[in-house]
This record gives sequence, structure tokens and C-alpha cells, in this order.
Amino acid sequence: MKVYVTGPRADIRVPFREVTLSGDAPAIRLYDTSGPGSDGPAVGLPPMRSAWAAERVAGGTQLRFARAGVATPEMEFVALREGVPVSTVVDELAAGRAVLPANVNHPESEPMIIGRRFLVKVNANIGAASPTSTPEEEVTKLRWATRWGADTVMDLSTGDRIHEVREAILRNSPVPIGTVPIYQALERVDGDPTRLSWELFRDTVIEQAEQGVDYMTVHAGLLLRHIPLAVGRVAGIVSLGGSMMAAWCLAHHQENFLYTRFEELCKIFARYDITVSLGNGLRPGSIADANDPAQLAELRTLGELAWVARRRDVQTMIEGPGHVPMHKIKENVDLQQEWCREAPFYTLGPLTTDIAPGYDHITSAIGAAMVAMYGTAMLCYVTPKEHLGVPNREDVKAGVIAYKIAAHAADLAKGHPGARAWDDALSKARFEFRWEDQFDLAIDPDTARSFHDEAVPAAPARIA
Amino acid sequence: MKVYVTGPRADIRVPFREVTLSGDAPAIRLYDTSGPGSDGPAVGLPPMRSAWAAERVAGGTQLRFARAGVATPEMEFVALREGVPVSTVVDELAAGRAVLPANVNHPESEPMIIGRRFLVKVNANIGAASPTSTPEEEVTKLRWATRWGADTVMDLSTGDRIHEVREAILRNSPVPIGTVPIYQALERVDGDPTRLSWELFRDTVIEQAEQGVDYMTVHAGLLLRHIPLAVGRVAGIVSLGGSMMAAWCLAHHQENFLYTRFEELCKIFARYDITVSLGNGLRPGSIADANDPAQLAELRTLGELAWVARRRDVQTMIEGPGHVPMHKIKENVDLQQEWCREAPFYTLGPLTTDIAPGYDHITSAIGAAMVAMYGTAMLCYVTPKEHLGVPNREDVKAGVIAYKIAAHAADLAKGHPGARAWDDALSKARFEFRWEDQFDLAIDPDTARSFHDEAVPAAPARIA
Repeated sequence: MKVYVTGPRADIRVPFREVTLSGDAPAIRLYDTSGPGSDGPAVGLPPMRSAWAAERVAGGTQLRFARAGVATPEMEFVALREGVPVSTVVDELAAGRAVLPANVNHPESEPMIIGRRFLVKVNANIGAASPTSTPEEEVTKLRWATRWGADTVMDLSTGDRIHEVREAILRNSPVPIGTVPIYQALERVDGDPTRLSWELFRDTVIEQAEQGVDYMTVHAGLLLRHIPLAVGRVAGIVSLGGSMMAAWCLAHHQENFLYTRFEELCKIFARYDITVSLGNGLRPGSIADANDPAQLAELRTLGELAWVARRRDVQTMIEGPGHVPMHKIKENVDLQQEWCREAPFYTLGPLTTDIAPGYDHITSAIGAAMVAMYGTAMLCYVTPKEHLGVPNREDVKAGVIAYKIAAHAADLAKGHPGARAWDDALSKARFEFRWEDQFDLAIDPDTARSFHDEAVPAAPARIA
Repeated sequence: MKVYVTGPRADIRVPFREVTLSGDAPAIRLYDTSGPGSDGPAVGLPPMRSAWAAERVAGGTQLRFARAGVATPEMEFVALREGVPVSTVVDELAAGRAVLPANVNHPESEPMIIGRRFLVKVNANIGAASPTSTPEEEVTKLRWATRWGADTVMDLSTGDRIHEVREAILRNSPVPIGTVPIYQALERVDGDPTRLSWELFRDTVIEQAEQGVDYMTVHAGLLLRHIPLAVGRVAGIVSLGGSMMAAWCLAHHQENFLYTRFEELCKIFARYDITVSLGNGLRPGSIADANDPAQLAELRTLGELAWVARRRDVQTMIEGPGHVPMHKIKENVDLQQEWCREAPFYTLGPLTTDIAPGYDHITSAIGAAMVAMYGTAMLCYVTPKEHLGVPNREDVKAGVIAYKIAAHAADLAKGHPGARAWDDALSKARFEFRWEDQFDLAIDPDTARSFHDEAVPAAPARIA
């Protein structure tokens, strides 16, 4: 059951999923990303943050307010949502150790925070991949992803209806929406990366900023001098954005315009309070390439850029790999935190082995749980279809749930206040054979219930 | 394609799955647990090790031979299978850091070794759970589990046909078979643990030993004085064997007869070269109970027992939890290795959170990969039905594959010689768009192929 906890002002209403239990077991409140109900995609969600944006007379980003010691309504909201003092939120934002992605033009989103002191977050990718997919279909995918706990959603749409699809997603999304603007820019030059330009990219960013995109991936750290470092790799450059920018740099014998124009880009981001997500264009695409000179050289540049963005009041996070064997995961986080001045880390997986296409939600949930335990703030999910095809509805669910498990396991390992209450409530219900309570508390009540119904009841223990 | 590599003598023929690749990519040989073909459950597998057992004139366990510096045919076999010098196998067995479970009465099994210097192994549990299941059904499950890579199988059958089912499993198993003899003993006293006795247990062990069971779980470390330590737990005693022995101790106000008679038990084990697996009767059944005084007190006793067993030439491994949050996993392995003189550790998962019934193959694959990286030698799988019901065929496959992934990820992290060749071969195939090679190299070619067929072809990268 959805309940709302009201904050210091009446218009701060923080949603939770409250699970009531049988007997005298106390109810438990869980973090809830599913958003308010809706009268359909055409209507969209209520613009709950409109008034808050209007209140910010001078404008400015959450980072700027935090540095000034001002707790915005968004900060009050996330403090309640995370169960931490608002001062922690302000401090972490001010230090650049956390971001609160909230474009002023996306008033429908419920504020959330990404940083190592907070609950580990999960991003799900969606996006129209065929010319025939409709805005309604993408909104359905969005709601499906947030129903299972996606904290942000990236719209990776391509195709003719890209603007329209993104508009529908934004107007119906209770979570921050991220994009990779180079994808749309590339559409405009018919997929020929050598025809990309700063002006074209800038205009694309502004178009998306006006619509309300909350964070954008920009591959500004991939420099001309890094490209030779990737030549001997087993898997080359697997990032689409990275390979496009590398192609542009090589064709023009010029430095990446996203790097040379980064200050200008930051001015745009600051105007809308868009969080910049510095893309990992040289992330390793195989175990053999993990933590190699190419990846680490780019990471150093991302650290420089993070500093530039922060000076411009732009909230910043850093993207990371990819494919990394377990013994090299901690080094990734440690270097990122050192070189990028503790900016939040946002990793794709990582996959801990390459041998299991069809099961990469599992190969990568292992890496995701570990990388989050070491300090990664947000995990980009991987679905079972990774490397094989476009995920369908069941794949999206499988990916989100595997990643919510990884994130929660990391929350427990980091000792996030309150994280263990969920485990304890479920284990107590299990010990006392309160089956309905177990199902209701499960991360996926439908599956737990149906597995139990179809099977012979379990003995108290399955093995010795 | 199955190929055999012949060892220093013509009757040592080690199976591998050879994957031939297109173009000039070299073929790759993978560890293969699927065993030889069979003319059906009634016929059974060829008793390949009969001659080897007969050669051991004086009798004695693999541990005894290793201590004498003698490389048995079984040791030669596993050295080839693991790609390590036979001296490593002899040394690790002699030091008690590895076990080679091979009952003299199970000549059908292909030798394998369990120890931290070797490939991480995976156990799958099967067993007739309903009175109507037939020996043929259990043999089908066994072959299914080993087809997907189970390195050992535990037969946890209960019911009227328990002896007959076990016989069918042993005669058809190319992998070592483990049991928990207390389960059968309990059947003989109609499920009333207070009626258990040493004599009954001993006779059950001998019956199973004669059939050829390769390793047996014995809950000999759960002592009367440990029981009060488990009283305040969230989940109590979740091990079935553990709870039975605790009930017996409390009812009789006597020390656990498996502890007091342990020397006698070791004499039986030595006679057949049965490996003892010291059960973790007080393993935590919830995150809240992890690494608690009850579990650790029992672990200390298991260390004592390991020493007793080793003196008697009995190969020994130590079972471990269970439910453990990520930050407490390493402590478990470190204490086990210290207290049990580096005897191989054999853990169930561990599950890293309690919140995901229906997905415990994933919650536990995370823990399994980590515990194996820290030094656990064998992982007992957990299926999606854990806590909910008896696993079906698809659950067995899902559990085995999740655990093979965890084991391989740990092999990579530990730098096992040759482990990365598999990842590199697959990633090279991926980079060169050799789709058929990718499918053939996949841990589950069927799933990889069908996911690719059903979906729109993937772009080179799924996210930025």
C-alpha cells in the first residue's frame, strides 16, 4: 500500500510502500519508486515540483544551493526518503559527493539522491529501438521499470519519433530521466559520426534540456591521445558514444569537441540544473581489457572535467565499466574516487566474466554488488539479453530485480541505516511460517507466491 | 564435442568439451562434467576406476597415498583435468588442503579435486522428495545437473525407495555423490529425532558406504553447549541435520553421538575412502544471524574434528553458511581456514540478502562468487525455489548455471591458470561478430542462441 510521509512543509509528501504484517508484527515502510497513479500517458503525471522551481528566485542548481547552505524542498524530500538528516544531504551535495538530478523542466519527478552515503540506486535503460514503437509503448516500459524499483531511467531511443517518445516519457516519469544526446545528434547526420559538430550537439542538448531531461551522458573525456591506447584490445571500443567520438576525432584530426567546448556545455547544464554524467567511452568490453591504460587515461580526464563542471555549479557523476574481473573492481572505485574528487560513480555492471551470454544480469549483478559495496553510488542494469538483442518486458524486469538485489546487498554491507530492517522482517516471517507476510515483503511478491503455489511445500531447510 | 586426453598410462583418459571455432581461431578445451554416454539407467556407466582401486594393494585413502608421496591414477587424472602438475595435486592432498572424493565402491566416477588451488567446484542437490518419484527420474535429474556443469551431486532423497534411488544414482553418476546419512536414519525412526542412535546411524553409513557414496555430511560439531547460543536468533536453527541433532541432545541431555563416536565413524570412512564433510548445523539462516557466536563456536569444533579425521587418513572438508552479508563473508573464510587448518571450505551460497525469495540463485551467486574468491573450494548451489518449494528441472539448471558463473568469476579473480582463455575466446568471437562461435562458447549455448534469434540484433553497445 502506498503511503505518504509529509515533510516540514505540506507540499513535501514522500511516497513509501507500506507492508502491513499479520499478528503484532509492525508494518514496514520500503522505498518506493513507482510514482503516483496516472490518468494515462496522454495526461501525464502531476507536476509536483513546479512550485519549488518557481521559488528559486535567483535560479541555480541544487549544488549551488547546497554550497550556500540552503536546503531546497528537493533536499528535504530526499532526506525523508532516505531516513537521514537533511544536513547530510546538504553536505554531500555541497561536497560534490552526491547529485540530485532534477531538471527544472521535469516537475513530475520525485526527488532522489545519488551518492555513496545514500541507498545504492539502479538505472534501467529503455528506448524505442524500432521505427514502429510508439510513445505509449515506451511509457509502459518506463512504468514497468519503476514498478520493480528502477531509480532512474535512461531513454536510449533512436528513430523518427525520438522527440515525441522522450516527451511522453518525461511527462509520465516519477523518476529522473537520463539520455545520451549524441545518439539523437547522430540521427541527424544519418549515422555518420564524421558529420557531427559542436553546434549540432549543442542544439540537441538544448532541445532535450527544454523537455526536462535530468541527466545527460557526455563522452567528453575521450581524447585523441587516448585512442591509440585502445588499439591492442581484445574488444576494442564497445561504447557506442565512445566509438562515435573516436571516429570523429580521427576523421578530423582534432580534439573531441565535447572536451574543447565543455565549459560552454556546462553553462547550458547549469541553466536547467542538468546533472552531467561523464561517459566512459573507453570502458572495457571484455575481461581482458579491464583497468587497462585506455580506460584509466580517460578516467583521469574525467576527473579534470568533474572539476570544471563543479566550478560551474553543475552536478556531476562519473560513468564506469563494463567488464571487470572481481579482483580488479576495487581498484576501479578507488581510482575513480581519488581522481574525480569523490564525485558519485555510476557503473554498468560490471560483468565479472564474459562466458555467459544470456545470463549477464547474473554475471554483472555479482560485479554490481561488489562495486557498490566499495562505493559506487548508482548501478546501470544489464538484462539477460545483453550482447544478444533488445530486452523485452520480462528481460527489463529480470534486470531491474537482479540489480535491486545487488544494490540492497551493498546497502547491507555498507550498513545503511534501516536497510537491514527489511531482511529482518522477512526472515522473522519465514521463521514463524507467516507465508503471506513473506510474499508481501518479497522484492517480487508475484514470483514468490507463484513459485510457492506451484511447488510442493518446502521443508524447513533444503540442505543439511 | 567430447574429447579425451590420455595421461601417463593408457587407462587415464580425461574428458574435455572441445569447442572448434571458425576461421583460424584455435579450438578451446573446457572442463567437462557430463560423463560418458550411457545405455540407460538400468545399465549404468562403465566402472572405469575398478582397476585402479584393485591396484591399491594395501588399501588406504587418497590422503594416505598423498602423504606417502604416491600419485594414484586418480591424482594423475585430476592433474590433467585441472592443467596443473601432479605434484601440486599430491602436495595439496597431503596437506589436507584438498580432497579427492572417490569411494572405492563408486568406480563409475571421473576423479575430481576440491581445494582452493584448483578450479572452484559446484554441487547440485537432487533427490526424490515425493513417494512417487522413481529412480529413473532421479537419474534424469542427475544427468541434467552434470550436463550444465555440476561437479558433485548430493542425493537428499527421502521416502520408501531411498536405497534403490541412491543405487541408481551411483551407478549412473560420473561425478562424486554426497549424502546426509542422518536423513535416512531419520526415516527409520519415523522422523522422530529423539529415537536416533549411534548404532542406527552407523548402520546407515555402512549401507551407503557399501553402495559407493563418495562424501557424507555429518553434523558432528554441534555440541550441547552450543545450542543455547542459537536461542536468540532471528531464524533459529535452519539446518535440518542441525536441528535434528539439537533435538536429540536436548531430549537425552547427552552430548551429540556424532561427536562422541567420531573416531569410530572415521574408521568406517577410511575403509571406503569416504570424504567427510563436517556439517554446519548452526549455519545462519538469516542476515541477522551471520557470523554469530553459535556459528563460530561450532566452527571451532569442526576444526578439532578435522584434525581427528586427518589423523585417521580421512579426507575432510568443512561446510559453511548460509546467509551472510557481503562485508562478513571474508571473515568466514579466514576463520575457517585458520581454525580448520586449511581444510577445503564448502559453502551453501551464501545468500547476501533475505529479501528476494524466488531469486535466491542470484542473492547467493553474489555471495558464492565472493566466498570462492576468498578461498572457498566448493559451492553448494541454491535454486530459485529456495525457501519456497522443491526445484524442478528448470530450477536445477538455473541454479547450476548461476553457480558455474560464480565459480568461474572466482577462478578468474584467483588467476587460475587457463581460466581466462575461455573469456578471451568468447570476447574475441564477439568482437569479430562470429555469432556461431559465441553461441558455441557460451556456458549455455541453447539460451544464447534462442535469445539472439528471438530479438532484434543488438547494436555493438547497448548503452553509452
